[in-house]
Amino acid sequence: MSIDILIEKIKKKDNPSVVGLDPVVSYVPQYIREKYYKQYGKSIRAAAEAIWEFNKGIIDAVYDIVPAVKPQSAYYEMYGLAGEEVLSRTISYAKEKGLYVILDVKRNDIGSTAEAYSRAYLGKVEIEGELFDATSADCITVNPYLGTDGVAPFVKDCKQYAKSIFVLVKTSNPTSGELQDLVADGEHIYEKVAHLVNKWGGEVIGESGYSSVGAVVGATYPEQAEILRKLMPKAYFLVPGYGAQGGSAKDVAKSFNSDGLGAIVNSSRAIMCAYQKGDWKEEEYAQAARAEAVRMKNELGSVLQYC
Amino acid sequence: MSIDILIEKIKKKDNPSVVGLDPVVSYVPQYIREKYYKQYGKSIRAAAEAIWEFNKGIIDAVYDIVPAVKPQSAYYEMYGLAGEEVLSRTISYAKEKGLYVILDVKRNDIGSTAEAYSRAYLGKVEIEGELFDATSADCITVNPYLGTDGVAPFVKDCKQYAKSIFVLVKTSNPTSGELQDLVADGEHIYEKVAHLVNKWGGEVIGESGYSSVGAVVGATYPEQAEILRKLMPKAYFLVPGYGAQGGSAKDVAKSFNSDGLGAIVNSSRAIMCAYQKGDWKEEEYAQAARAEAVRMKNELGSVLQYC
Repeated sequence: MSIDILIEKIKKKDNPSVVGLDPVVSYVPQYIREKYYKQYGKSIRAAAEAIWEFNKGIIDAVYDIVPAVKPQSAYYEMYGLAGEEVLSRTISYAKEKGLYVILDVKRNDIGSTAEAYSRAYLGKVEIEGELFDATSADCITVNPYLGTDGVAPFVKDCKQYAKSIFVLVKTSNPTSGELQDLVADGEHIYEKVAHLVNKWGGEVIGESGYSSVGAVVGATYPEQAEILRKLMPKAYFLVPGYGAQGGSAKDVAKSFNSDGLGAIVNSSRAIMCAYQKGDWKEEEYAQAARAEAVRMKNELGSVLQYC
Repeated sequence: MSIDILIEKIKKKDNPSVVGLDPVVSYVPQYIREKYYKQYGKSIRAAAEAIWEFNKGIIDAVYDIVPAVKPQSAYYEMYGLAGEEVLSRTISYAKEKGLYVILDVKRNDIGSTAEAYSRAYLGKVEIEGELFDATSADCITVNPYLGTDGVAPFVKDCKQYAKSIFVLVKTSNPTSGELQDLVADGEHIYEKVAHLVNKWGGEVIGESGYSSVGAVVGATYPEQAEILRKLMPKAYFLVPGYGAQGGSAKDVAKSFNSDGLGAIVNSSRAIMCAYQKGDWKEEEYAQAARAEAVRMKNELGSVLQYC
């Protein structure tokens, strides 16, 4: 199962963190941006190419110490076709470097449309009986609002193609409670979704004991994370909201099991823009990213020993 | 407001229907597919180009009788970068032909990531202080699971760039009730979302009295549609599930107001694949699509007079 591959990488690097690749062109050091504006003019293509060089630099700087990267699709879709192309290159390059690629797309739809999304990112697309790869990630994020119809096609491909998904359960943002914290039949909606995650994940339990259907649980809600950790013992958690959004390493600890496994913690801007803090030069953006990734690894490590 | 533009087109064509462009390459007549396999080999590029010719034929056949088209992004993402390019061409071509383009992407995220999605499809992307278009639709669909943080950035762009959104409220699929029908504080989750839709839409009410924040309400749940119609008097409804999924024109009537406005009904496969039924030749796929679009228009018209 795909989750076993992720866990193996986490163990090998002794690091349960994932580097979010959510690049806005303004994050890219000016000397890189100028190079591409000179080549392509001030344009979407130039912005996308600058982001590609930036991403590549960050991947090169962290691939030996982190198990996974999480490109956020929105930031590539924002740069149109050029951005999509750079997303595709980023995924391929990260995979070449041995990283597990979690593509954050939060897709959701039903029936044959959910199948189409799944084929786009996890499975393969059929053309006259032959199968082709479109954009092949190891894992994607999925939104559960449409129920089982909206998730089952992804689970099917998790099984068939050894892939994984993380389903939104309790998100890290301030208003996540507007729907997720409502109480029905004595349970919060996020608990209802947790039960569904257990059901969906039952078919794809790996040798590690964890399922290839995981859950997104925000670091900003440690109390809920504690409840959800007990409710979904076999689900891996993808934990956003660490750092920039206010979640501390101690908060994040609630998402881990006592075996030190069970969660992978995302950090995006703090790593990508590390060079903008302290005494770094622009040209040192990759070293700065690595230093922040190491700092995060150590911080998580020191907290996890108390899990 | 953007919703006024849609309503004007609906009135002008006297037709509250939208043609869904959800193409799988196997829907495309064989003579078109063969042409592109000959040119590009059996490949994703060939499939995408075949879909482009097919889409263009359908748009040409219906643009004078329908107000809007709804490309479903999944079917383009499935064909990778070639598919994305064809989606972009399809959107541009439909707009050239005067159609209102509802891009069905069901995007959802928070804060700056939701902003990035909004810039990708509704707003503009900023590069060194200049604004550029990425993929510019008139309208997109949005998933509400993350609450106000996940929708507000789209509403802001609806206001700034005269665009619109449809928020998923009650979807047409069999398992939509797993979360959407749960009852909290005496109200179904879909009713809770309806109240949020009213709140989000309050800032973008057009001269028509309708809001540029609309709701997705499936034709397969007419009882819920009737309740939601009363609960969201100013929201336009995008109604999937007509035809193929079992929703009849009578079911669909529940989504309209007594002014004959308030909803736009989607049909995808029944129109795209109309040539596969009856005595049509493959070469007549566009005429068959038009005939089905006319049939649907008449069917909706005959039911709507009793609204």
